Order: sequence, then C-alpha cells, then structure tokens
Amino acid sequence: MSPPPTIAQQLAAKQREISVAEFFERNRQILGFDNPQRALLTTVKEGVDNGLDACDEARILPDILVEISKETDDRLRVAVTDSGPGILRREIPNVFARLLYGSRFHSNRQARGQQGIGISAAVLYANLTTARPARVTSKVEEEEAAHVLELVIDTQKNQPRVVSEDVTLWDSPHGTRVELVLKARYVRGRQSPYEYLRGTAIVNPHARIVLVEPDGTRVTFERASTDLPPVAKETLPHPYGLELGELGYLLKASKRSGLAEFLTKDLQGVSARTARELLAAAGLTNSAPPASVSGDEQDRLLRALHDAPLIAPSPEGLSPIGSILIKRGLRNVLGELRPEFYCPPVSRPPKVHAGFPFMVEVGLVYGGGLPADQPVQILRFANRVPLLFQQGACAITNAISNLDWRRYGLDQKGGSGLPSGPALILVHVASTKVPFTNEAKEAVAEDPEIDKELTLALQAAARHLRTHISRKSRRDFASEKFAIIQRILPKLAEKTSHLVGKGVPDLTPVITRIMDIVNVETPFESDKNGVRAKVEVTNYTPRTRVLELFVEIPPDVFPLAVFEPVPDGVEAALGRAWWTLPKLGPNGRTALSFSFPPKTDVEANDLDWYVAGIDEAHILGAEPLPGDWDVRLPRTIVEAAEAAAADAAANGATGEEEVDYDAAEASAHTSEED
Amino acid sequence: MSPPPTIAQQLAAKQREISVAEFFERNRQILGFDNPQRALLTTVKEGVDNGLDACDEARILPDILVEISKETDDRLRVAVTDSGPGILRREIPNVFARLLYGSRFHSNRQARGQQGIGISAAVLYANLTTARPARVTSKVEEEEAAHVLELVIDTQKNQPRVVSEDVTLWDSPHGTRVELVLKARYVRGRQSPYEYLRGTAIVNPHARIVLVEPDGTRVTFERASTDLPPVAKETLPHPYGLELGELGYLLKASKRSGLAEFLTKDLQGVSARTARELLAAAGLTNSAPPASVSGDEQDRLLRALHDAPLIAPSPEGLSPIGSILIKRGLRNVLGELRPEFYCPPVSRPPKVHAGFPFMVEVGLVYGGGLPADQPVQILRFANRVPLLFQQGACAITNAISNLDWRRYGLDQKGGSGLPSGPALILVHVASTKVPFTNEAKEAVAEDPEIDKELTLALQAAARHLRTHISRKSRRDFASEKFAIIQRILPKLAEKTSHLVGKGVPDLTPVITRIMDIVNVETPFESDKNGVRAKVEVTNYTPRTRVLELFVEIPPDVFPLAVFEPVPDGVEAALGRAWWTLPKLGPNGRTALSFSFPPKTDVEANDLDWYVAGIDEAHILGAEPLPGDWDVRLPRTIVEAAEAAAADAAANGATGEEEVDYDAAEASAHTSEED
Repeated sequence: MSPPPTIAQQLAAKQREISVAEFFERNRQILGFDNPQRALLTTVKEGVDNGLDACDEARILPDILVEISKETDDRLRVAVTDSGPGILRREIPNVFARLLYGSRFHSNRQARGQQGIGISAAVLYANLTTARPARVTSKVEEEEAAHVLELVIDTQKNQPRVVSEDVTLWDSPHGTRVELVLKARYVRGRQSPYEYLRGTAIVNPHARIVLVEPDGTRVTFERASTDLPPVAKETLPHPYGLELGELGYLLKASKRSGLAEFLTKDLQGVSARTARELLAAAGLTNSAPPASVSGDEQDRLLRALHDAPLIAPSPEGLSPIGSILIKRGLRNVLGELRPEFYCPPVSRPPKVHAGFPFMVEVGLVYGGGLPADQPVQILRFANRVPLLFQQGACAITNAISNLDWRRYGLDQKGGSGLPSGPALILVHVASTKVPFTNEAKEAVAEDPEIDKELTLALQAAARHLRTHISRKSRRDFASEKFAIIQRILPKLAEKTSHLVGKGVPDLTPVITRIMDIVNVETPFESDKNGVRAKVEVTNYTPRTRVLELFVEIPPDVFPLAVFEPVPDGVEAALGRAWWTLPKLGPNGRTALSFSFPPKTDVEANDLDWYVAGIDEAHILGAEPLPGDWDVRLPRTIVEAAEAAAADAAANGATGEEEVDYDAAEASAHTSEED
Repeated sequence: MSPPPTIAQQLAAKQREISVAEFFERNRQILGFDNPQRALLTTVKEGVDNGLDACDEARILPDILVEISKETDDRLRVAVTDSGPGILRREIPNVFARLLYGSRFHSNRQARGQQGIGISAAVLYANLTTARPARVTSKVEEEEAAHVLELVIDTQKNQPRVVSEDVTLWDSPHGTRVELVLKARYVRGRQSPYEYLRGTAIVNPHARIVLVEPDGTRVTFERASTDLPPVAKETLPHPYGLELGELGYLLKASKRSGLAEFLTKDLQGVSARTARELLAAAGLTNSAPPASVSGDEQDRLLRALHDAPLIAPSPEGLSPIGSILIKRGLRNVLGELRPEFYCPPVSRPPKVHAGFPFMVEVGLVYGGGLPADQPVQILRFANRVPLLFQQGACAITNAISNLDWRRYGLDQKGGSGLPSGPALILVHVASTKVPFTNEAKEAVAEDPEIDKELTLALQAAARHLRTHISRKSRRDFASEKFAIIQRILPKLAEKTSHLVGKGVPDLTPVITRIMDIVNVETPFESDKNGVRAKVEVTNYTPRTRVLELFVEIPPDVFPLAVFEPVPDGVEAALGRAWWTLPKLGPNGRTALSFSFPPKTDVEANDLDWYVAGIDEAHILGAEPLPGDWDVRLPRTIVEAAEAAAADAAANGATGEEEVDYDAAEASAHTSEED
C-alpha cells in the first residue's frame, strides 16, 4: 500500500486547466449576461455591432434588422440580419461558436468588436439557458445560395460543433443572419434594445436600423445620410505608452534589415532623423537585425523612444463622429426639449495610450426643457457604440465627476460627483483599442492618458458653458430692463400726454437714451410652406452704427437656403454667410431674411448669429464675432469695431465687469491646461 | 492567375484564434493592471490571497511576508512569502505562468481565488513591463530542499516556459515565495498595499501579515487569534438558479443509477420525498440513467426543481466573518474615532444565486468622530478579501445607494445615491462563487438574488440605526433637561435660601418631581492599573423601584472581568451578567462596578447596558432589556415591569410618541420584507 497523499499532493491533484468557454460560462456576468434583461441587450448589441463592423469594412451601407419575439414565458427569440458581405462557410462555426476567435483583435484600427468574444458569448448563453443551438444563415456575393448552420459550443474544449447544415435561397446578394433562443426579458425604456439602437442610430447616421418588438411594433431608424464614414485605416503602433514586452514582440516579428528601418517603418511617429538621434542616445547601432536586439538594449531603446520628440499619432486608424453629427445627434435626442444652448462640439487631437491612438469628443447641451434639479444626463459612446451599463465604473463618468463644475455654472455638492443642472453631456472615446473594464465592453477603464484628454475636452466644453451662462445672465438682465422699459414707457407717455393735452411722442429716442444697445431679434417660422428665418436689427444707441451681421447654418442644409438680400460673403463649406448692414443712425432699423424648402431639417437653435463692429456690452440678441473666424471685414467695420473698443475702454464702468471676467477666463485656461 | 480575393475572402483571411494570454496582455486593465499604482496592489493582492487560500486549505496558521523594494525609478520588486503547504515541483510552472489553470475553479466552496488567473496575470504583467521572469521558490514538507524556478509566459500559446531552475535550502518546513519585478508605483493611503493588508487583517485575524515598504518601514499586522476559521467544505450544487445547460452537464456526468438518486445525491436541498414528487410533477420516471435524459425532459425537470419546496442551501461551503469579528474589525479601523453606536452586525441566512450558495453580512457604525458632512464610508469585502477599486460599479454600493436612508436618519439627496452622515458601513458577500464584474475581482456584479439579500441586510442594520438615532434624540432631550435642572435649581435654591435666610435644602426631591426618571451613569476608566467600569443608578422618580441591571460584554474578554458585587446571573458564552438592584425608594441611589486586567482589549463602547422593571420613558443612560434575551427574571422584577407598563399605558401623554413610533416601525417592516 502506498502512503496517503501529503497535503501538497492532495492540492496538486486538484489542479487543472480551465477552458476559456467554461470560465466565461461560469462568469457570464463578465460578458454582460448578468440577468435576462441585460442578456437580451448584450445579444442584440453583439449582433448589431458585428453587422455594422462587417458593412464598414466592406464599404457597404448597413441595413440592420433586429427581430425579437416571444418563445415562452421567460424565453425570447432574437434574430439579427445585416446587409454585410457575408461569411465564408468554413469560417462560420469559429466566428459564432468559439470564444477568442476573430479578425479585429490583431488589427490596429478602430472597430466596434475587438475581442473575438461577443457574438460567441451570446451563443454560449443561449446554449446554456435554453439548450438551443444558434442558427446562422450567411450568403457571400460569389455564391448562389446561403449556408444555414446550427451551432453549439463545446465548452470543455471551446470548439464549435455543427448540429445541422443546409443551404437556402437568400433574397439579397449578401448578408448574415444570426438567430438565438435565450432566457431573456424584454423592456422598453432605460437600458433597452430600443435605447441602444436609438443611440447607435445617432452616431451611425449611414445605417438603416429596423427593430421589430415582441408585440409586433416595428420601429425604423431611417438612414440620415448615404455617406459612408471615413475608412479607419490599419495603422502602425505608436511608441508612446508601448511596454517593453510589446516592443520585444515587434522587434522579434520585424523583417527589417536594421533598427533605423524598424523604427521608421514598423512604428509610426518616428522620422528618419529622430531614429538616428535616438539610436545614438540609446547607444545602439543600426547594423543588427531587429530580432537580435538583447533585453538590455531593448530597455535602452524604449527609454530613448519615450523621451524622443515623435510625430503625433495619425488619426487614420480612427473614425471620430465629428462635430456636425454630434450636434445633429444631440438634436435628435433632445428635439422636444428645445435646449437654449448647444456648445460647439469639442474634438481633441489624437493621443496615445499604451501604444494605441485614441481621441475624445465632447458635446454639451444646456437649458430649455432639460430638468434643472437633477444630475446632468450623460451619453457615453466608445467607437460609435452607446454604453448603457456600468456608468458608475466608467472613466468617462469619473472625469465628469472629478471636474469642479461649480466654476462653470452648474450645481455640484462639494465640487465633485455628478453635477446637477439642465445639461446633457455626450462623450465619445474612439481608439484602435478602447480599454474596457471587462469583456461586456460597457465602461472605459481608468487610464492616465485617456483621463487627461477627457478632462481637457470636458473643460473646453465647460468653458463654453460658463461663457454662455454668464452672457445669458447679463443678457437676461438687459432683456428684462428692455422689456420693462418697453412696457412702462408707453403708459407713462400716454398718461403724461393726456395730462399736458398733447399727442403721444415717438419713444424710440427715449429708449435709446436709457438702453444704449443694438437689439437683434431673430424670429423663426416653420410651416408647410417652408422654413423662414428673419432678422431685425434696431439701433437703440445714440450713435450711428456700421455693422456686419453673420449667420452660421449647419453646412448640410446651407445650400438649400435662399437669402434676401444676397449675402456680401459666404463660406458654404462652413455654413457661413454675412452682410454689411446699411448704416444705422440712432433709432434706425433694418431687416433681412432667408428661407428653406418645406421640411428642411433646421431649427432656430441651429442658427448662430454674430455681429462685428460693436462691443459685447452694447449688443442684445447676438454674439460678437468669435476671434477665430477667418473673415476679411470691410474697412468700415474694422474702424467701427476699433472705435467701439476704444469707447468701451474709455467707459470704465461698463467695461469693468468684462475685464475681470476675461482675466479670470485667461487664468483658468492657464491653470487647467499647463 | 487566380482572380483577386472577394471581400468575404479578404475578411476570412484575417480571422484567427486569439490566445487567452494574448487577450489579457492586451486587455490588462481587465485584470487590474490599469496603471502602475493599481498594478502593484493587484500583484500584492494575488500573492497574498493565494497564500491565505493555501494555508486555509492545509489548515496552517498563515504567516505572510510582503516585501516591496525599489529596483529603478519606475520599477519595484515585490516578493510575497507564505507559510502554506508548498507546491509540488511539477505544478509550479502551470500555477504561476499559465492563465486559466487552478485548483479552485471547479470546486464548490468559498475561496479567495476562484478563477485560475490571478497570480499568472501578475507574472504576465511583470514579463510585459520589465521583460523579467518571475522567480518562484517553494518547499513541500516531504522534501529536503526548496525548488527555485524562473518563469515566463509564452503568450501566444499561454504556456509556461522555465528560464532557469535550481534547488535551495529553506528555513521553514514548507511555504512558497514569489518574486516579481514590475513597472509599479508605491503609494500609502487610499488604494495602497497598506490599506489592502490592513483590510485583510481585519477579516483574517488568524493571519500574521508583515509588510516591508520600499523605504524599509516594517509594518506588522499581528495575529489576533490562533483559531483557524471554520473549514469551508466542498458542497453540492443547489438547484435554485441552476440553468438548463448546467443541469445538462450534471446529468451527463452523473454515475447514479436513477433520477431520484441523482436528485438527492448529486444536488443539495432535495429530500427523497421531494425527489419523488417532482419527478411525478415533471412526468419522469426513476428508471432511466441520468445521462440519458432528453433535452425536453431536462427542461421539465428543471422547471419542477425550481417550483419544488427545497431545503435551504447548506452554509457548509461558506466561511462568514461572524458578528464578533465584524465588530472587532470595525473597532480596529475606527479606534480613535470612538463611534457612539455599533449596530449589532447583521448576518443573513444563506441563499442561492445561479446554483451557488452565498450569504451577506453587514456591520454599521455611527457617530463619534466620523465626519458628519461627507458621504458615508463603505468597507466592501468578498470572500474575506477587501475590495478597494471600482466602488461605483459594485452591487454593494448600488444596494446602499438604492435604499432611502432618509427614513433611517441619514441625509440623502432625493432619497437615492450614497447617503451622507457620520456612518461607516461594512458589507461582506461570501459565496462558493462570487460573481465579480471582471477578472480583477474588485466589484460584485448585479444579481437579483444577491441584491435582495444585500437590501434586506442593509435594511436590518438601518433599522437599528434609526432606533438608535430616535432614542438618542429623545435621550438627548431628557439629558439636556436634566443638565439644565441640575445647573439652575441649585442657583435658584441658593438665592431663595439667602432671601428667606434659611439653609439650602436637599434638591433631589425637586429634581425627582420635575424629571421623573431613573438615571444610569456608566463612568469608564482605563489606565496602567487596569480597566474599570462603574455604574451608578439614581431613582429620580416619585415611586419605589425594583430594577434588574444587565451588562453585555464582548464574550472574549468576559472571563477576565472581576465583578463587585458578584452578579446574580451570568451567561458567559454570550458575555452577559445581571444583578437585582437593592430596592430604590424615591431619590435612592446604588452603585456597582467591575474591572479587567491592564491592557484588556475593551472600551466603554463595547459595553451595552440594559434595565428591566421600568418602561423606556423613565430610564436615562441605559436601554430597556431587548425582548429576545432569554433570561428568567425574579418575580419582583416581572411585577415591577408589569406595573410600570400599566402605569405607562394609563399615562397617555408619555406613551403616545412610543406607540406611533412602534406602529411606524411595524409598517416599515411589512412593506420592506414582504
């Protein structure tokens, strides 16, 4: 008889390999299958994200159909059909029924799916909860018929098993359909397939998405544009944030003859000159083949790379949403609420985290019908995918919470945590690899580089907000004064006229003396005959004014506008038009207008009005022309502007508040960005 | 020439397998290696958790040494040594340098490590950031010398590679040491190794843990108890929450001859009778071998199991912290702050999520030096491991945020979100499988069953808090009144006496007439001569009182107490002692005391005082005896209590507030728990 096993032997006997499918089956919450409601959303998401990625790669306009129907009390059937290029028969089993298998993990460009887990995880969950196979139908253009496969995952081996196979006719030239029966629960509203698809439609206006709900309701998110988004190109790794081990892999895999060539051709951002200089700094020569570089040398090379002045990462691997779509997307979401202020969307230049380029975009909306007494709303996106869960775990939320919004005009208890107020913040993180907190890809993990960019983008948006709020309060004050004067003066005049037995005089000069402003009114009408924007400018100042009036219109609708009179200048690409107004004496008034065809997608809020030739303190209803507009103004306007500035400077009392404000703004810029 | 590849072919050519090591290397944030500070903590955590698990399994008192030293500017060396049973030579490479390999994944009992990822992930990160191998030394009792292996992970294959191998002498009979050099940053304070080890020591008082910091500072968390925690036994899966696929695996793997035997012997919670009944309900017979049950039959069987009246899950697989350690742990953390109230720790009975037993424990502390104007502090634990990151993503935090704490006496804006106030909440989730949000195991995922238990446990603790706050405010009012009377009456008396030219009278009867309370003072002294607790009871009521006085002392120090006079009853196991006080006429006073040896670990806050024989409205400085104390009171006390109750009932004005309060309490119980 052998002696009884020792403790170490007993423990050793229990050691064994864990299949990745077994692991995720037991830890399905990590993949986003915590409960039946979330399982449904994750399934829809993985199907749709795959479809959109395939279409984008093949340069096909996406047509996505999501059908959800009831199977039994606690089971739903989910079918996602895309118009993508289809999948070759031999790849179907691995793509749908094997975890950690995919085409986008090793690529270096922005995509929705990156892990090779998503759709197979949904198949795994369906197998587990209903023991039903996944049914995949796919047709590629070069074949006559579509293949239909029924698949399950052998979890102990993490391998696909084909349960049945057939061919069928398919009514479009190419595409893929995946059908699953799973334990799930359908909800509408928060964290629902509906909300996810709506968010997806906002940032993917080139996609047509149809949702058929279990009760038969059919919701269509129509394609808003037939322009495909720019191709996110395959890019090379950037040295910033690269770890030693990763550099080692790149060196080992390199076919280049020397290190200089490796640095300039297998990495991005290194010029030939920089390569020479940093090799010298690291004490390395160009002669050795990259694969032969020793560990110590790699270490020196990496340190030299991190210290070197490299070219900023290329944005070619990225596919940002862009200002226009951010603004339009927000308008779609907020339509009815008619916010008073859309901050110009902020788009930061690309930066690098762990060798992967990324960029941050922020949109901010304020006022109107947004609830004033609740935490601000947050719309999070990563690589054009809406993030609906784990808001509290997300670097985006944390960056918002860590900013002191009290300085920018929002309420915030103690200067941290989610601010309160009538605002909505949209944040998009785009990267060739977004670092998610887990495989469910619902929250961006903390990363010092990403955090810095998030903070800078949010600060930039927040500064716009502060300027708006501050101007608004000054304007509100002036408007109120103006309204009171316009209401009371006529009554006063009437009474006085009656007493002295004379006719009621023209009150404009009196208003002028009290107000000392140029008032811009911008009435806007939209009906079945068309959309009409009008502007009326009245000079309630005691001086003659020479003014230039500017309007900024969304560039996509700009070509539809019919102006009257014809503008003195236009910059159609930016959606800008401007007029030199007729000289306006005290109490003088002028008007102009333009119109769009019926049903044009434009609102009063989309138009921004600016005036040059007058200082901020004397204008009501429009903003002074921002400094970054590259417009050559007529000489008369330049002179008028200079005169107005001199006037404002001389008039200490009026100008004082401005000066202080600007100083505060300038110092805030310095302390935040340096 | 062959035709150019079609789009589907091009995409297919990019499809490939992803090794799990490659996946996690690229997504190291998922494993808790987001940045150098967190990477250090995660490394320490994985090393220590492994050591504690190994010791617990081998029934060895853990001795853990964590040494952190500086290697270069951005690199630290971390060595974790444990006194565990050691690891057999042949298992060392797989345990330390292969992901998804381990002994605890397939077991069904509570352990810190469950995934077979942790320590290998730390090795992977060290390899990646410094290209240095891990150095593992391990000795098992049956061998003379220790094995020393240097290991790296071949990430493309997820296989260990032994770089060097040696043997060495080891000065203890068994143990393991793992040494890593990694890119890391040392901090003290929040989310530091120090905080993690302190938290670990709190809930693992049987472990001795030593931390050597980079500056040479040596911190020792001394063993507070030589009792090993109860063994968490291997248990069978419980049918509640089991998915169809999981039932399928169990059936397929079962060696039982019939279904009834399968149900009663391969699952827990199913009695022989229930097994018969549910087989009948599912329309199944006992004859077929479990492995032959068809899909449809499995479905019916599972539905019958979910509907059946099963025996509650066994707590044997779990190792809760327990009330005494929770209270002591909190005292250790909060020592200096001297909170005024330690809520009796709440321990919920075991429940099941997804087939895995779990239980929730909650401790709550209030007042004293805890900051009153900040969010409450939260200490989260899972399977005796402190959770320091991702608080916002954790089901524990969410359960706290979703409770309306305003009803329990804390501030909370809008009735949700983290409450504010001088409170600290400790929550422990223990399970044979804790569902973490990701592989870094820093947050518990949302699960309806766990959420329900968290909510019930928090509500139970919160009700104690409400009772405390409400009593306190009434007591504060009485105390204040008492203090004023004691200050003003003598002055009044002195002045009056002076005026009428008489001596100052005894004021006790006057105080009695105004206050109508029995006052209990409990002065507490602790110095180098010992610890002394005194009680003084004064009857400021106009009636003679027959009272029983109770004290509750932490059971571990109870045997050290020397009472004077000897109590009339003790229940040492529960730390309780009581005395029948001498009959106290109006204005009568009596005292008693007890003492502990010098340095006994007991504080004024640890003693709870109760009085029987009088109603709540007439007692100050002690609580009425709780109803759940199973103590046989002397006949005189029972009669006195009944008389006092009748008296209180007759006196509507005094009793009214109580009645309302109790009704509110009762209705709250109903609405929350039903």
